Amino acid sequence: MNNTEKIQELFKILDEAEIYARAIGKMDFDMQTVAPEEGMDRAGEDIAFLSKKHFELTHSEKYAALLCELHGDSSDLTPLQKKTVEKLYEEWEKEKNLDEDFVYRFNLASNKAFSRWISAKKEKDFSIFRDSFKEVVDFTREMVEKRDTRPVTVYDALLDDYEKNGSIKQLDAFFEQLRNRIVPLSKRVVEEGKPIRDDFLTRKCPVALQEEFSRRLLKIEGLRFEALVLSTSEHPFTTNFGAHDVRVTTHYYEENFISNIFSTLHEGGHALFMQNEPQEFYENHIADSMSNGMHECISRFFENIIGRSEAFIHFIYPHLIEATGDIFKDISERELYEAVNIARPGLLRTESDELNYSTHVMIRYELEKAFVNGDITVDEVPELWNKKYKEYLGLDVPDDAQGCLQDVHWTGGYGYFPSYALGNAYGVQILRTMEKDMDVFAEVERGNLKAVSDWLIKNVFSIASVSTPDEWIRKITGESLNPDYYLDYLEDKFTKLYELK
Amino acid sequence: MNNTEKIQELFKILDEAEIYARAIGKMDFDMQTVAPEEGMDRAGEDIAFLSKKHFELTHSEKYAALLCELHGDSSDLTPLQKKTVEKLYEEWEKEKNLDEDFVYRFNLASNKAFSRWISAKKEKDFSIFRDSFKEVVDFTREMVEKRDTRPVTVYDALLDDYEKNGSIKQLDAFFEQLRNRIVPLSKRVVEEGKPIRDDFLTRKCPVALQEEFSRRLLKIEGLRFEALVLSTSEHPFTTNFGAHDVRVTTHYYEENFISNIFSTLHEGGHALFMQNEPQEFYENHIADSMSNGMHECISRFFENIIGRSEAFIHFIYPHLIEATGDIFKDISERELYEAVNIARPGLLRTESDELNYSTHVMIRYELEKAFVNGDITVDEVPELWNKKYKEYLGLDVPDDAQGCLQDVHWTGGYGYFPSYALGNAYGVQILRTMEKDMDVFAEVERGNLKAVSDWLIKNVFSIASVSTPDEWIRKITGESLNPDYYLDYLEDKFTKLYELK
Repeated sequence: MNNTEKIQELFKILDEAEIYARAIGKMDFDMQTVAPEEGMDRAGEDIAFLSKKHFELTHSEKYAALLCELHGDSSDLTPLQKKTVEKLYEEWEKEKNLDEDFVYRFNLASNKAFSRWISAKKEKDFSIFRDSFKEVVDFTREMVEKRDTRPVTVYDALLDDYEKNGSIKQLDAFFEQLRNRIVPLSKRVVEEGKPIRDDFLTRKCPVALQEEFSRRLLKIEGLRFEALVLSTSEHPFTTNFGAHDVRVTTHYYEENFISNIFSTLHEGGHALFMQNEPQEFYENHIADSMSNGMHECISRFFENIIGRSEAFIHFIYPHLIEATGDIFKDISERELYEAVNIARPGLLRTESDELNYSTHVMIRYELEKAFVNGDITVDEVPELWNKKYKEYLGLDVPDDAQGCLQDVHWTGGYGYFPSYALGNAYGVQILRTMEKDMDVFAEVERGNLKAVSDWLIKNVFSIASVSTPDEWIRKITGESLNPDYYLDYLEDKFTKLYELK
Repeated sequence: MNNTEKIQELFKILDEAEIYARAIGKMDFDMQTVAPEEGMDRAGEDIAFLSKKHFELTHSEKYAALLCELHGDSSDLTPLQKKTVEKLYEEWEKEKNLDEDFVYRFNLASNKAFSRWISAKKEKDFSIFRDSFKEVVDFTREMVEKRDTRPVTVYDALLDDYEKNGSIKQLDAFFEQLRNRIVPLSKRVVEEGKPIRDDFLTRKCPVALQEEFSRRLLKIEGLRFEALVLSTSEHPFTTNFGAHDVRVTTHYYEENFISNIFSTLHEGGHALFMQNEPQEFYENHIADSMSNGMHECISRFFENIIGRSEAFIHFIYPHLIEATGDIFKDISERELYEAVNIARPGLLRTESDELNYSTHVMIRYELEKAFVNGDITVDEVPELWNKKYKEYLGLDVPDDAQGCLQDVHWTGGYGYFPSYALGNAYGVQILRTMEKDMDVFAEVERGNLKAVSDWLIKNVFSIASVSTPDEWIRKITGESLNPDYYLDYLEDKFTKLYELK
């Protein structure tokens, strides 16, 4: 077999694996959006069976042989094929020393941790979660230690998994910059900021009306409905099956219409990314492999940088008033803008405002780094968590459910959280470059988000899946990640909003 | 291997095949309810791949060997296991002389016929469909002729496929009885019936309100929402994945609320059947194999016999008025009852009233029988169709789209239609037996449909999947199918309603 034949053979296996992945993805989507309670167990078993089929394909001897041979000699491959081989080889290499039994036991531990976490959160009692949590941390350490190439520390390896070339060194510096400027700014807002009214945000709005408005927002954002689904689920998420079938979910609450606008814009950002990666990336099995930070960058770009801007509020305000009849007609455009930008330290990350969001992430980063690398034990987590919430956000944590048990992430893995904060910082840096090509907020004010989307398609989505995060942001903006753009933006926005001196 | 081991091996294959079937079913449900336009092609390909996996399992040498051995010697099997073997063997036996190439070409022809049918219907031109239609008929004949056991005629074989032991002889007699009494009754209604007002049926109702009312109806019907999904699709249908995940769809039209009530009751009947077959039937791979006539019996029982009864209208009327505010408040209970029972010959089967429905079915039966058995050519179908609509329903068919192209069924197979009429007749016969145990309509008038559902669970669903249609109706009612019950019911109901002399 020559290399052209080998890559075709490899792609045949991947084609088949992706059929299973799509079937699993649709069954999972079904579970999260419509499936009845009693159907869950069976659906879970069916997904497990299909996952096994998927696993077998990408863990067969044939697959490994093809991949290793092509990795050793990639002559005659196209540049995209080379990228795919490189990426898949890296993934394979990380897992190659894990035997089936280990993977099985790890999964079991993680599933158990999930159900313990549910109970612990319900009972507001960390001790219920503690043993399972420790077990997952131990499995994670063992997983990394089985790799041939030993990283600086275990947590460095995990950071690299989520954001290629990520490291403690890089993130320590990043978060230090954030801490130095966001924490004092947040305190000034609390102590010196003018009062802002937000009582009207929770006024009741019929769900049918909210749904129609969400569809409108997604269209404005530049999404093609011929390739989009909008559904509802307990927690909003976005998923896709190629560029031609992208799915956004939201959760309507009658008294949470305004908040749903930003949730929709957020998920719409993910969806825009998925609809607009180059088709050849999908065909070469390389799409969807960009970093989480890149993806969060785009979703938070639309949610905050665009969505919570004066320009966007100016554009959307009359539509909102018209769509909701009498509900918000006594509220001025300015009042709406201020209310959706209120910066008020809170206990929950998912409900955080734009200013304080990265601080929530930083706290998780500091803790993860410590307990994954064994600098602290899991038993120390609740107390340290509460201490950091006091120090950085000035808050007392009343119980673990609103404290270290609030996020699902730690039931399965560590190293993901930093992506959220990185995404925030990438976003503003990209904005500043975009502004060199056009008057971004003048376009937004006219409702021409298509100009923004088109720019992202051309400059951002087109290279994401074939670049490391650092290559990507350098290609787009000409420099490596520089959080000053983000920090300047926050200072400017919130100093003006709160009329700080 | 002893027989106990053999049946376990066989069931293991079936377990796996059913996982694929559920995955396919959920992907199909997804396509019909939410999937975006651009995702359809890929979804179709994925389903085709999984169908191949499913086919391979139930067409493997191992499967055939186990099945044939257990069919030859079924000692030590439980009665249910024996039933399963018997049923599966019969299916296998019918297909065993079909090679892969034949199946492939037949599928191709059927898919092509479907797309030709779409065009032909759109263009109102039978000639576009003609060649594909003939091809499917020829393939169907060839399929039956390949069987070892030759039936009396090809169409007899097809009838037996859909309704075990069904035959032309039986159905000719059945439809003759129907024709002799329904056709003249329908004519008398048209000529002598009092006028009935139905203008209000198309008054606009918000979709959100309709959806809530549909949920209420399904609950009243006895469905458990822990194991039920209500979604929307272009054409309403019901499907399931065991008893614990049953899915009903409907299609809301603002100006079609009242009609949606009966559509919901109809699909709810199918769903009730699926939720309440004995769990051991599901475990023994024998559930869902009852005849279509049995299933249509239950759906039409709830739609017409219960749903369009004076008792049910009496019960539901105040709920309807309350739920719809001002929309129907000027309409009396009697006006509602009469309007939903209007008997007016129309061109379309799916929109037919209760009185004329079986006549639509009969026309299709007469034509199918003739063209499948070669007594007429497919070219004669449109003219004969129109002639029969004139003769039985007094209507002129303006074009083929409203004539012989109206149903999708003939793009893929023949012999299904009679099930609808059989279902109507089974329903009334079962009602008369049910009435010996309780005052059915007194319960319905109180909204106690649970009494009806419980009776059906106990007497009807509990034996359906393990009985031939004749065994089934005899066990329930003590006699074979006797359409007189149905015909007496129609005469009584419509004579009174229209005040015929």
